[in-house]
Amino acid sequence: MTDFLKLCKERYSVRSFTDRKIEPEKLQKILEAGRVAPTAVNFQPQVIYVLQSPDAVSKMASVTPYMFGAPQALLVCWDENICWKNHRHEEDGHSAGEMDASIVLTQMMLQAQELGIGSCWVCSFDFKKTRELFNLPDNIKIAALMPIGYASAQGVPSDRHEKRKPLDETVRYL
Amino acid sequence: MTDFLKLCKERYSVRSFTDRKIEPEKLQKILEAGRVAPTAVNFQPQVIYVLQSPDAVSKMASVTPYMFGAPQALLVCWDENICWKNHRHEEDGHSAGEMDASIVLTQMMLQAQELGIGSCWVCSFDFKKTRELFNLPDNIKIAALMPIGYASAQGVPSDRHEKRKPLDETVRYL
Repeated sequence: MTDFLKLCKERYSVRSFTDRKIEPEKLQKILEAGRVAPTAVNFQPQVIYVLQSPDAVSKMASVTPYMFGAPQALLVCWDENICWKNHRHEEDGHSAGEMDASIVLTQMMLQAQELGIGSCWVCSFDFKKTRELFNLPDNIKIAALMPIGYASAQGVPSDRHEKRKPLDETVRYL
Repeated sequence: MTDFLKLCKERYSVRSFTDRKIEPEKLQKILEAGRVAPTAVNFQPQVIYVLQSPDAVSKMASVTPYMFGAPQALLVCWDENICWKNHRHEEDGHSAGEMDASIVLTQMMLQAQELGIGSCWVCSFDFKKTRELFNLPDNIKIAALMPIGYASAQGVPSDRHEKRKPLDETVRYL
């Protein structure tokens, strides 16, 4: 990789995967990029379930159409007993867990991209059924699902990039 | 930059800045890395206030000790009227806005690092007073503050990296 912005721009949401599994050393590197992510007060509340057995993958596919045929996925959660609570937030005691999990996920997503591995950030799945299927205890909160793997031919859109708003719609200078 | 993981590992939270302002073209590149970030359903609900006037910076410093002397900061928010609501979440209608803002922030944080610009992800500030000071309407929700700039000598810790848990504490294979 030569340029971070290029990496960001080349990433796209893969919505069709081949059945080729990610090489173990690449998976480790992806997890490592998440491991070194900053989290509130460095509490590191993330809990990452690597769904890779046929049983786990098929369970996940039973509660969402958005596994896209990927042979593995990261179900990223956080431990509510570990994460920082923000008492200066408008919602007193607001949990930093979802934000922490999102930083971890973003670093893993971009690391995957650098390795030529596609991903899709998915939140549309039945959270309650997912909790039941994987016997997650109440203190484990689900942030998002990220199927990862190699894009199939159909998984590479001809127009790779969704349109983004120009900066003057989202940025204000004070 | 030659390696994404190296970029992630070299980033650290800067807690003391010089008064040197970021060059405008570098600031634009940082904002651009946030602009191209994925958000739920590509709704792009982020609203980014670039605090750079002496008045805005001193207002922000009045509600948090964590501006660390930075001459500018990004106050990253989202528009609750724009963001996606997740009806398959355990909390029905859970807003994707904080997660979206976190992806945008993470990409900006890493882009800053590549440019040699330090940052610190800050959530410890009075959200309610911040809303009042900057006249944020109710639909604008605050995610986090990120002072950015050049680290002072004191801002570079001798042991740069906070300790992180080993992967076997945070990852489960299913």
